[in-house]
Amino acid sequence: MTLFNRETTEVCNKQILFKDYVNGFPKESDMILSTSAKIHLKLPEGSKGVLVKNLYLSCDPYLRSHMTKTEGGQFESYTPGLPIHGLGVAKVLESGNSNFKKGDLVWGITGWEEYSIINAPETLNKIQHTDVPLSYYTGILGMPGMTAYVGFHEVCAPKKGEYVYVSAASGAVGQLVGQFAKLSGCYVVGSAGTKEKVELLKNTFGFDEAFNYKEEQNLDAAIKRYFPDGIDIYFENVGGKMLDAVLSNMRVNGRISICGMISQYNLEKGEGVHNLLSMISKRLHMRGFVVTDHYHLYPKYMEMVIPLIKQGSIRYIEDIAEGLESAPAALVGLFSGKNVGKQVVVVAHE
Amino acid sequence: MTLFNRETTEVCNKQILFKDYVNGFPKESDMILSTSAKIHLKLPEGSKGVLVKNLYLSCDPYLRSHMTKTEGGQFESYTPGLPIHGLGVAKVLESGNSNFKKGDLVWGITGWEEYSIINAPETLNKIQHTDVPLSYYTGILGMPGMTAYVGFHEVCAPKKGEYVYVSAASGAVGQLVGQFAKLSGCYVVGSAGTKEKVELLKNTFGFDEAFNYKEEQNLDAAIKRYFPDGIDIYFENVGGKMLDAVLSNMRVNGRISICGMISQYNLEKGEGVHNLLSMISKRLHMRGFVVTDHYHLYPKYMEMVIPLIKQGSIRYIEDIAEGLESAPAALVGLFSGKNVGKQVVVVAHE
Repeated sequence: MTLFNRETTEVCNKQILFKDYVNGFPKESDMILSTSAKIHLKLPEGSKGVLVKNLYLSCDPYLRSHMTKTEGGQFESYTPGLPIHGLGVAKVLESGNSNFKKGDLVWGITGWEEYSIINAPETLNKIQHTDVPLSYYTGILGMPGMTAYVGFHEVCAPKKGEYVYVSAASGAVGQLVGQFAKLSGCYVVGSAGTKEKVELLKNTFGFDEAFNYKEEQNLDAAIKRYFPDGIDIYFENVGGKMLDAVLSNMRVNGRISICGMISQYNLEKGEGVHNLLSMISKRLHMRGFVVTDHYHLYPKYMEMVIPLIKQGSIRYIEDIAEGLESAPAALVGLFSGKNVGKQVVVVAHE
Repeated sequence: MTLFNRETTEVCNKQILFKDYVNGFPKESDMILSTSAKIHLKLPEGSKGVLVKNLYLSCDPYLRSHMTKTEGGQFESYTPGLPIHGLGVAKVLESGNSNFKKGDLVWGITGWEEYSIINAPETLNKIQHTDVPLSYYTGILGMPGMTAYVGFHEVCAPKKGEYVYVSAASGAVGQLVGQFAKLSGCYVVGSAGTKEKVELLKNTFGFDEAFNYKEEQNLDAAIKRYFPDGIDIYFENVGGKMLDAVLSNMRVNGRISICGMISQYNLEKGEGVHNLLSMISKRLHMRGFVVTDHYHLYPKYMEMVIPLIKQGSIRYIEDIAEGLESAPAALVGLFSGKNVGKQVVVVAHE
């Protein structure tokens, strides 16, 4: 009879499996949609984990780092044959952990599949505010939001009237940095890779100016055009040639916060950066950071950002892909700039 | 009769003139020894400057920057046909400024000549301690000393037990950084370009280890050998390939202070630095600084360093070139690492 009861709760669990280690740009075929897994919608006896139904998955550039075969380092390699994992929003179906109960909504690391058993639920964050779109917890209310906040406010310590430049400015992080900068009284210019994105920066996010870096023959000249007096704060999302052009246009005591270098992740060897001598004459501070080191600031950030969202003082644009099937293409698209705004995959709406 | 009196005080003033703007490595022939100038050993009527007799001249890598034709920027170009200027120690012969009087010893910017009239004497520092070698005011008690102090103590905030790497370690700044690091309880490794310098680092300056970078096929492997657990603090004097090798060997929360990049000054385009992605995963802070911004700390530094010198707790090695004639070769030699220790030129002993 027990056997029969268990079987009634076994369902199909669609998954996106990691195929094999990646060199260069990731392709859709580096991931496989599998419909063969089944899952009992019950936690194993004695489990201290939680069983969740995945709702939204987050496509983030850093996932590329899990696809490289590495030993040690910040990002553990994915295991070929197992599901991709990353940040997402999920609903608790059953909990063996006293901090979570059935029906709770959470965000944190989960699998690219319909249902996941999360064995270390202490990494999950319980969602308190549900009167905002739940998908925001993959973006403005999750890791990218904290990245923008920490990298801009904590690392760069902006002052009113300063000149701020944001690359990859329409992305999950960049769009927020630009708006935080405007709210701080700064002058903000962003760059992106299509006309549509440039319009978005100016018309939706309120950047003072924006340009399409793909249309510029000479990045240095483009930056000089928008910053004739130089840049105080550069929020680095790109790396390589862009960083080089920025370095020679920084002002004295300028600050560069580095949260990512999307242009570099698919290269075997990073592009050469030639203008580091500017670090001296311009007295520059350059600081790399990993947002998870700063998660203790999450409540402070929420206190700031939730009212801004509710008042309509901040906008957040998402690029929503429907269905787990669409996840590989959505992830791969990040590296050619296909997404407009934060790339999210909907696994289930509830 | 007045005419006769003036003429008795007119003497020959040997000078090192700047010939023309330099591309690539500077050569001795970029400077000219001139014996044709004459000077009245009296200040012009109404002058608020000081007339000094130059004793010691300082050869510093940054002088290379004055030799490039530039507009604006940190370093004004030298004027072809006029004497080189740089830091030095001098004796006041006559003063039109109430802060200085005849017989005072000073350090600051002066000309590469026997006698100089300094029209902006507020840039000069009066020498208080004369019971140490006066030439030290071109080094440990002058700009290089302050550079080591600010770059190590203020920028890098060392903690006991940290791993410190110093490049160009036997130079005017590096030898001090290494000794400050030992006095702070750090583990210190230095690199230099000859066997003799490596011995000096280990036997005279007390570095824990030292190596000859010119004998290493692979800088990355060399650094890994001396820092199997990575580097906490890198004091950057070199730039280019060395910085690249260091970047991939930094520890989490490592700090890099950049006061100079001697390997880059003679290049038209800086060498590419490829490993900046480490900035993120290792949460590195990189900061360039210009020592003159920090001169308000000079009294604090003197309070620390004068007792160390007198107790013999710190050593300072100088490479003394005799005579103004030797100055061009001494300066040029910096860029091939010919000097052992701080390069000084003696114009007159008193």
